[in-house]
Amino acid sequence: MTEEQHQQFRAAPRTVISVDAMGGDRGAGAVVAGIARSAAKNPDIRFILHGRADELERLVARRRVLEGRVDIRGAADVVTMDAKPSHVMRHGKASSMWSAIDSVRNGEAPVVVSCGNTGALMALSIVRLRKLPGINRPAIACLWPSRNPQGFNVMLDVGADVRADEHDLLQYALMGTSYARNGLGLERPRLGLLNVGTEEHKGRAELKAAHDLIASCAASASYDFVGFVEGGDIPSAKVDVIVTDGFTGNVALKTGEGTARLIGDFLRQAFKATPLSRIAALLALTSLRRLKKRIDPRRVNGGVFLGLNGTVVKSHGASDATGVSAAVKLAFELAQSGFTERLAARVASAACVEEDALQARTGSEQKP
Amino acid sequence: MTEEQHQQFRAAPRTVISVDAMGGDRGAGAVVAGIARSAAKNPDIRFILHGRADELERLVARRRVLEGRVDIRGAADVVTMDAKPSHVMRHGKASSMWSAIDSVRNGEAPVVVSCGNTGALMALSIVRLRKLPGINRPAIACLWPSRNPQGFNVMLDVGADVRADEHDLLQYALMGTSYARNGLGLERPRLGLLNVGTEEHKGRAELKAAHDLIASCAASASYDFVGFVEGGDIPSAKVDVIVTDGFTGNVALKTGEGTARLIGDFLRQAFKATPLSRIAALLALTSLRRLKKRIDPRRVNGGVFLGLNGTVVKSHGASDATGVSAAVKLAFELAQSGFTERLAARVASAACVEEDALQARTGSEQKP
Repeated sequence: MTEEQHQQFRAAPRTVISVDAMGGDRGAGAVVAGIARSAAKNPDIRFILHGRADELERLVARRRVLEGRVDIRGAADVVTMDAKPSHVMRHGKASSMWSAIDSVRNGEAPVVVSCGNTGALMALSIVRLRKLPGINRPAIACLWPSRNPQGFNVMLDVGADVRADEHDLLQYALMGTSYARNGLGLERPRLGLLNVGTEEHKGRAELKAAHDLIASCAASASYDFVGFVEGGDIPSAKVDVIVTDGFTGNVALKTGEGTARLIGDFLRQAFKATPLSRIAALLALTSLRRLKKRIDPRRVNGGVFLGLNGTVVKSHGASDATGVSAAVKLAFELAQSGFTERLAARVASAACVEEDALQARTGSEQKP
Repeated sequence: MTEEQHQQFRAAPRTVISVDAMGGDRGAGAVVAGIARSAAKNPDIRFILHGRADELERLVARRRVLEGRVDIRGAADVVTMDAKPSHVMRHGKASSMWSAIDSVRNGEAPVVVSCGNTGALMALSIVRLRKLPGINRPAIACLWPSRNPQGFNVMLDVGADVRADEHDLLQYALMGTSYARNGLGLERPRLGLLNVGTEEHKGRAELKAAHDLIASCAASASYDFVGFVEGGDIPSAKVDVIVTDGFTGNVALKTGEGTARLIGDFLRQAFKATPLSRIAALLALTSLRRLKKRIDPRRVNGGVFLGLNGTVVKSHGASDATGVSAAVKLAFELAQSGFTERLAARVASAACVEEDALQARTGSEQKP
C-alpha cells in the first residue's frame, strides 16, 4: 500500500475483517475472489489480508472493487491441512493463520476468517486469543438448514473437543443461545440437548446431569429448554439450538452433509436416466436450483469458534468464492452485532447462573 | 385354524417367519397387509402371527393369499411404545412380543419380525433368546443407502447400548461383517471404524485401542479394515460396514433420516413454488420416483439384532405395508442363508481371533 492507499483504508467504512488468505484447498485465489464478492455486495466492509505478499498483491490488484479496501500483511508460511496442531503452536509464528488471528488479538479487527486446518486454527486461537474467563472448553458452532422461519438451526460443539461434561454442556447452551440471538436474531432461542431418545431415563449418565443443570438455568439465561432431542430433530422447527459433545456433533454434521451429497448425486443420476427425464430436468431446473440454494452447504459456510476473546469464523477447507463470501458475511454480521462482547457478558453471568441453580437446588433439597 | 388348515400349514413351504402383529404405530392392519404383500411375492414363506386372535383372524381371513400360510397365536397384551423395558421384562409374558420371540426360542421359526418398542424388544430378546457365548453387548445393525454396487452399507450399533469398549467394537466388527456376507452377499467386506477424523491420532482413546484390535484381527476374520472413517463416509463406496457405539450410531442414523426427510420436503416445496415448476414436477415424476425408491427408508426397513441365539428383525414403529414387507423380506433372506448359525460360528471363533491377535502383538513386542 502507498501512503495514499493507507489513508483511504483508514477513511473507509469501519467494519474490518481479518482474513487468512492461505491454507484453504483452493489457495489464495478463491479467498480473494470471495472477499471481492463480499466487497461488491457490502460497501461497509474492509479487510486485513494475511499471506504471501507478492501473490496477494497480484490477486488483489486484479479486483477493482477491492481498491483501497484491503490491507495486506505479509506472512511467509502456510499451515497445511495435515499439520499437527501441536507443531503449528510451536513453529507457526510466521504463518498467515497466526498473523490473521493476531489482528483480532491486537484489536485491529473484531473477527477473523480462515479456510485452514481446523485443529490448528482452534489451537492457535486458544493460545493467541485465550479462553473467556470461566470457559473450560471452547466450542465450534455450525448452522444447519432447518424448517424454522430463520432457515437455520445452530448446533454445537461440532468438533472442538471430543469430550464434554455437564458443565461444558451448560456453557455450550449459554454460548449457543447467545450466538442464535446475535447471529439469527432470535430473542428467546429454544434449546435442545442431543440424546438417543426424548424420554428422561434414556442416554448416558452425564446427559441426565446436563439435562437438570441446563433446565435449572433456563429462566435466568433467557432460553426455553425443550429437553432431550434426537438426531432427526436437528433440522426441525421444535428447537433453534442443539447442544452436544464435539464427537457426536462432528459425526452428526458430517453424516448430514454426506446424506445431502448422496441424495444430490442420486437426484442427478435419476434425471439423467432417460431422454424424457433429461427434458424434465431442464424444465425443473429452477425448482432444483431453489432446492439447492436452500441446502447448499456453501451458504451455511462458517463454523464459529465460541468461548474465546474474539470471534473466529472457520470456513470449509474446500471453500470457493461463494463459500468464502458466505463466511465473510457471517463474520460481518457477528462483528456488527458486537457479538464478542455480548457473548463475554453472557458467559461472565454464567458462573452466577450455575451457582444460583446449585443454590436453588440445594435450598430446595434442604427443605423438608 | 381348522385341522385341515393346520395340515396345509405344515405341508406349506419351509421358511417360517414369526411376526409380532401388535405394537406398531399403525396396528395389526398394517402388519397383516405387509405379510400379505410378502406372501404374494414369495411362495416359499409362511408365518406364525402373534397378537389378539379375533382381530388377527378377521384381518387374515380378508387376504386370500394368506390362506393356509398363517398360524395365529393368541396373545392378549400389547407392549406399548412408551413401555419401560424393565417393566415389560417383568410383566410382559402375555404380550404378542414375548410370544413372537418365543417362537424363535422354541425353534418353530429361525427369525422374528416386530414393529414394536425397540428397547423392550431388545430386553425381551436378550432374556428369552440369550446372548451368544462370548458376546458382551448385542448390537442393532441397520442398512444405509450407499454408493456401493450392493446399494446399501451396514452400520452397527445403532442403539442397543449407549456404550462400547474396544472388545465390544471388535465383536461388532465380526458380527457386522458376518451380516454383510449373509445379508448383502459380500465375500470380503471392507470395514471402517467411525471417528471424527481419519488420522490415527484423532478421536477418543478407546477408539485408538479398538483401531489396533480390529486391525490385528482382519486377516483371520476375513475382512478388510480401512481404518477410521467419518460421518460423511457412511454412505460411501470406500467401506461396506461401519462400526460405532450405540449412542453415536443412533444419532447418526436419525440425523441421516432427518436430513433425507428435510430434503424431500424442500424438494416438494420447490416443485410447488410456481405453475411452471408444477408442470416440471409432473414430467419429472418418474425420475423423482426413481430417486425416492433409492432412498426410501421403508426399503431399508429392518434393524437386525445381532449377538443372540436367533435373529430378530426390528421394523420401524411407523411401518406401513411396504415397510413390513421389506422387513419380512430381510428376515426371509437371513433365514435362507442360515445366518444365525453362521454368525454363531463366527463369534465362537472370535475369542480365539482376539487371543491370536493379542499373542501376535505380545510376541512382536518381546522381539528386540
